[in-house]
Amino acid sequence: MHFNCSKEDLVYGVQTVSRAVSNKNTKPILSGIHLVAENNALKLTATDSEIAIQCTIEVEVIEEGSSVVPGRYFIEMVKRLPSGIINLKSSVREGMIIKYEQSEQFINGFSDEEFPSLPEIKNQITGSMPQNQFKKMVKQTSIAASNDESRPLFTGTLVEITGDKIIMVTTDSHRLALKEEFWSNSSPVIENKISVIIPTKTMVEVSRIIPDETEPLIMIGGSNQFLFKTSNITVFTRLIEGQYPSYTQVVPDPSKCTSRIRVKTKKLLEAIERASLLVRDELKEKYSLVKLSVDDNILEINSNSPELGKIHEELNVFLEGEPTEIIFNSHYLMDALKSIDEEEIYIDLTGSLSPGIIRSVENDKYIYLILPVRNT
Amino acid sequence: MHFNCSKEDLVYGVQTVSRAVSNKNTKPILSGIHLVAENNALKLTATDSEIAIQCTIEVEVIEEGSSVVPGRYFIEMVKRLPSGIINLKSSVREGMIIKYEQSEQFINGFSDEEFPSLPEIKNQITGSMPQNQFKKMVKQTSIAASNDESRPLFTGTLVEITGDKIIMVTTDSHRLALKEEFWSNSSPVIENKISVIIPTKTMVEVSRIIPDETEPLIMIGGSNQFLFKTSNITVFTRLIEGQYPSYTQVVPDPSKCTSRIRVKTKKLLEAIERASLLVRDELKEKYSLVKLSVDDNILEINSNSPELGKIHEELNVFLEGEPTEIIFNSHYLMDALKSIDEEEIYIDLTGSLSPGIIRSVENDKYIYLILPVRNT
Repeated sequence: MHFNCSKEDLVYGVQTVSRAVSNKNTKPILSGIHLVAENNALKLTATDSEIAIQCTIEVEVIEEGSSVVPGRYFIEMVKRLPSGIINLKSSVREGMIIKYEQSEQFINGFSDEEFPSLPEIKNQITGSMPQNQFKKMVKQTSIAASNDESRPLFTGTLVEITGDKIIMVTTDSHRLALKEEFWSNSSPVIENKISVIIPTKTMVEVSRIIPDETEPLIMIGGSNQFLFKTSNITVFTRLIEGQYPSYTQVVPDPSKCTSRIRVKTKKLLEAIERASLLVRDELKEKYSLVKLSVDDNILEINSNSPELGKIHEELNVFLEGEPTEIIFNSHYLMDALKSIDEEEIYIDLTGSLSPGIIRSVENDKYIYLILPVRNT
Repeated sequence: MHFNCSKEDLVYGVQTVSRAVSNKNTKPILSGIHLVAENNALKLTATDSEIAIQCTIEVEVIEEGSSVVPGRYFIEMVKRLPSGIINLKSSVREGMIIKYEQSEQFINGFSDEEFPSLPEIKNQITGSMPQNQFKKMVKQTSIAASNDESRPLFTGTLVEITGDKIIMVTTDSHRLALKEEFWSNSSPVIENKISVIIPTKTMVEVSRIIPDETEPLIMIGGSNQFLFKTSNITVFTRLIEGQYPSYTQVVPDPSKCTSRIRVKTKKLLEAIERASLLVRDELKEKYSLVKLSVDDNILEINSNSPELGKIHEELNVFLEGEPTEIIFNSHYLMDALKSIDEEEIYIDLTGSLSPGIIRSVENDKYIYLILPVRNT
């Protein structure tokens, strides 16, 4: 293998695949990045057991071939190379010779025969959606997924595709986020449905590496794997096995709430952040509570800490329905408010014991549900 | 105490004193910020046993008085307040009532009688230098000080003032930085000299909180304390006791070096950074070695790691004197190169066993000396 490429393209390529480089020592080859030079392109691949990322960049191929370089080191080194043309050549020993300006490096590599080939996907459904829409869906849903690996189901994002509709759902059992969007289905059998649980980490990773553009993100779903594709990036992910909890019964009918509060998203977020500060250093979750009370178009936010003091905030809101009050974990509220770009939201409440629902005023495709905390 | 002030001014005030807020639990009162409102100004003071910072901001005083608020919490809260006028009032209980927009907080405080008064300084010398010059001196000297608290002398910066000259020196015994500047002496007895060791942490802190302007930074030196002053900030610091090692014998006469290399600062830094990457993850310091060899106006930089590979860089330089080679700890080299803004430097060498000296080509007031590592 021997090729010339621009430093900037190479940085883009290695950074794109970097999150799939394994940090575990169990299989050393997975700490590498697989490079394949052919047809004036360089295909970079990295994979751990969860996710595989492939990225293709333009290079000037002098001799086709392949090689595996140590991932972390290669990423850091490439970032520090001088701008301009970089010349890379695999050596007789396993490894790469990198030349730039008057300088030269030799990097020890791995035998590329050991690098695992990527799984075949049993294609069930194919389609696409704009990349920027995907990014927003993931931003708004990933927040409600759990990080607790001992309950793997809750670390996943349920992705349900039916016809031209895609739904993403996450929950950690204290809150639930649901977002629905149109999907451009291009399956051979358009009636195909799919319901899979994708690690939320993968969803975030895909959303991170794709540009914020209206270009399509192609998605191919199978029973064992799921695949995301842009013109130059492919991400394979394993699925989480199991039966996702039924969300349709949990989400109440918004039209049946007894109090609907319309409030400015940013003002509410700032007030909750202040109220939450009082209790920030406490490790016990129950102390990060804020109480919302609404009456006469005034929303009151109260929290107090025996040690630090107390806070009482008031915001002008628009209330439809009955005055009420409810206690939430402030962090769950802040996560939702940060994920909504729209200026105003609704908070739909039905007494202090039923879940609260947060929605944007302009857009009803997103629902964020929080279980209240009982007053003790 | 009762006053109105702008949120932005209050943020500036609390952030300025924040580094002196104690994190230790031994004396709870030192975790507080002392507020004194009088003459339409608010004076904020924080102190731990090392350093005291005082900052004055303009406020509209409604009732003069003083109070002590919990430092960390107050800082974080003030940053999150909405822009505009904030109203602060000490309450009958120890604590403060903060009002803004339609909202109100109560913060528990401390009895302000417990807050220590600042030490009297036995003035020996007074003078000033431009703030931006002080910042640059500290940037270039602080890098060679040690972080090892078990050898307190080496954690300090030696500050020597004689007539209109100020010298700062730091060393961790592997390298030494020395910078000399003019000083505007305004002592009653102009012949006064002072030689004190100031904690380098304090030097960095002062340099951080003063603006990058040509306004004077007033310095007042005493036998027990040192004081830095701008129009609205005062910093008191304790001194480190002991006899600083004599630096005059260590620094060789630059005119007696046998090889003088003139090289572009940034190009050299980038090459050393790459060479250093090879050995970055090793905990043992002796592996972060780079070898410099100069001959025929070419500077070669070599480093190698049995595990990762090897690197050979070449830079065009201008050599006066003999070809030579030398091994340095790359981190000591990088620290110096990062602290020099000028485009070109000299590296003065006298064989591979004598210290190397780094100086900027345009400015001979700065010297950075590194002990070489013997080839083993």
